[in-house]
Amino acid sequence: MATAELRQNDGTIAITFSNGATGAFPFIWLKDNDPAGFHPQTQERVTDLTAIDLDVKASAVEADDSTLTISWDGEDTKTVYQLDWLAAHVPGQYAADPAKTGFKHWRTDLGADGIPRANAKEVLESDAALKEWLKQTQIFGYSIVEGLDDNTEAGMDVARRIGFLRETNFGVTFEVQSKPNPNNLAYTPIALPLHTDLTNQELPPGFQFLHCLANEAVGGGSLFCDGYAIAEDLQKEDPEAFELLSTVSVPFRFHDGEVDIRARKKVINLDEDGTIIEICFNAHLADIFDLEPTLMTRYYRAYRKYMAMTRSKDYVVTLKLKGGEMVVFDNRRVLHGRDAFDPNTGFRHLHGCYVDRGEFESRLRVLSR
Amino acid sequence: MATAELRQNDGTIAITFSNGATGAFPFIWLKDNDPAGFHPQTQERVTDLTAIDLDVKASAVEADDSTLTISWDGEDTKTVYQLDWLAAHVPGQYAADPAKTGFKHWRTDLGADGIPRANAKEVLESDAALKEWLKQTQIFGYSIVEGLDDNTEAGMDVARRIGFLRETNFGVTFEVQSKPNPNNLAYTPIALPLHTDLTNQELPPGFQFLHCLANEAVGGGSLFCDGYAIAEDLQKEDPEAFELLSTVSVPFRFHDGEVDIRARKKVINLDEDGTIIEICFNAHLADIFDLEPTLMTRYYRAYRKYMAMTRSKDYVVTLKLKGGEMVVFDNRRVLHGRDAFDPNTGFRHLHGCYVDRGEFESRLRVLSR
Repeated sequence: MATAELRQNDGTIAITFSNGATGAFPFIWLKDNDPAGFHPQTQERVTDLTAIDLDVKASAVEADDSTLTISWDGEDTKTVYQLDWLAAHVPGQYAADPAKTGFKHWRTDLGADGIPRANAKEVLESDAALKEWLKQTQIFGYSIVEGLDDNTEAGMDVARRIGFLRETNFGVTFEVQSKPNPNNLAYTPIALPLHTDLTNQELPPGFQFLHCLANEAVGGGSLFCDGYAIAEDLQKEDPEAFELLSTVSVPFRFHDGEVDIRARKKVINLDEDGTIIEICFNAHLADIFDLEPTLMTRYYRAYRKYMAMTRSKDYVVTLKLKGGEMVVFDNRRVLHGRDAFDPNTGFRHLHGCYVDRGEFESRLRVLSR
Repeated sequence: MATAELRQNDGTIAITFSNGATGAFPFIWLKDNDPAGFHPQTQERVTDLTAIDLDVKASAVEADDSTLTISWDGEDTKTVYQLDWLAAHVPGQYAADPAKTGFKHWRTDLGADGIPRANAKEVLESDAALKEWLKQTQIFGYSIVEGLDDNTEAGMDVARRIGFLRETNFGVTFEVQSKPNPNNLAYTPIALPLHTDLTNQELPPGFQFLHCLANEAVGGGSLFCDGYAIAEDLQKEDPEAFELLSTVSVPFRFHDGEVDIRARKKVINLDEDGTIIEICFNAHLADIFDLEPTLMTRYYRAYRKYMAMTRSKDYVVTLKLKGGEMVVFDNRRVLHGRDAFDPNTGFRHLHGCYVDRGEFESRLRVLSR
């Protein structure tokens, strides 16, 4: 049995729910969230807040087993709220979100054997397998899907189980292979140090999918490291470097004959609670740094330190992808790279695409209904 | 004639350019930006910063009319930089960017007559007309394109002159008309108070294109206001409200049978220099606010004040779009809405799409080459 107490002094209703949990609910918030104020079909909010007095006052409140009923000062109609709904929306607490799986940071000792694996046919056919694969991919930041058909659509079909593909200036999908007149280092056979893709975009792509169709050349191993784990360790080992990388933005740029796309980004991005939510690290796309000279020298020290950590044997995991395998990773967390390969010794061909975090998280929520 | 001075004490080279401008260039920055350190075809940076000593020292420097030549401590090879390039990249100064046109904030007194107009045929056929239209659209945050053909592709073709269309859960393009079983209030005939679209996305769409194919119903006028102008005025009139709206994020959400897309956003977003760069305001998509009770009450006051300003006669401009016209606006700056319309009195049909700021700015840069 819940109890509710009217507190005119701070303009809230204090509720103690039957399980002992408590919450203070401001009058204005209760008015704004009148259950009648949502469109019955679209579920969007249609309450007009400007028609509500900021100083609106409740005059009486009554709780029973499942509902809370409020009388309002100077109004005849009462408003009824479900207690379950109120308990799920206690002010000051984030609502539950099935897309928030948490993260398990990893370092080299997790090893290539620790990477989650899923079977393409199962992910394509079973929602339960899809959900489990998405959860593991988000927790670790990367995974491998095995058993793909030998055509360029096979990996993309798996990605589309999540949502539509994120288009970029490189197209909706892209071929990673050595090409004449490359406009991007990925399209050469040279080694690629660890990086995140498209840091020159305001929103770099979320999850990346690289379906390996052939990997017969000598070299061409794939390298990964967990940018969150590195940032976490940096914060402990070198707080000044962490502070600089998480507060100072630097310019990134990609330009070719068709586009000139620029963005300023911080290498380490935190949310309002100080949690690491994004890594933007790409030495190829780093534009000419434009910081004040004294800050510049300090920044270079911090930036170079993070860079060195991305290549350290403590953090890097090496995989040699096989034909029929697809590596999937959160491009805004897990850095990727490759060893140089010799295109004269065999064919190396990856087919890639991106799906943004928004679609990824949405799919996890819908699958959790 | 430029002059250059070696300053071992702070590790920079101080240059006075022939026009009198000056700059201090840190040794480590000069090494990192060795002209040989960029891939000749992709123009991407290939210098390996970890191979450069953080304490690298220049031992001699020499300037002539067009170049700066540096000798490095303990190295035989010298590095030659173009003085023009150095002048364009003075540390502490942002490099020139042709996409930064500046903004002209507007209020009701600018009136519907002040909106920039362009002709569809000219924008489709002339790069100069395209560039001028993009500049004006960015400066004012909105514009009208006239003379479109009477088919749903006509407006989209104009948008594609800029770049590819931004896909969302509503598709690559969308129809704004009254529909049975709507999943979005836009697809009903009810009034839509002023808002920005898809604030529930991590990156709400940049520029929006609404091609009017028919607007024969009674009602259905289009409303616009400049969210930057309102934020600017709020900052002067009510600094506490501005502070709350620019530092506290609130949850947004859209969910239907297919998706459940959520993001936390601030209503007013500033860059590191305190400049307003984005407005996220959408009462329909506002999720249940989850702030601490005392902050909640203060926040509601600020939020409701901004909301009231978006509807004030000081800020709102009303247009009745005609068939063959397309309104284009920066969805992250200019709020849009509409009067209710009566679907029994005539047909109202808008065809819409989005192009993100990244593509928009890239096109301005490429057209400025």
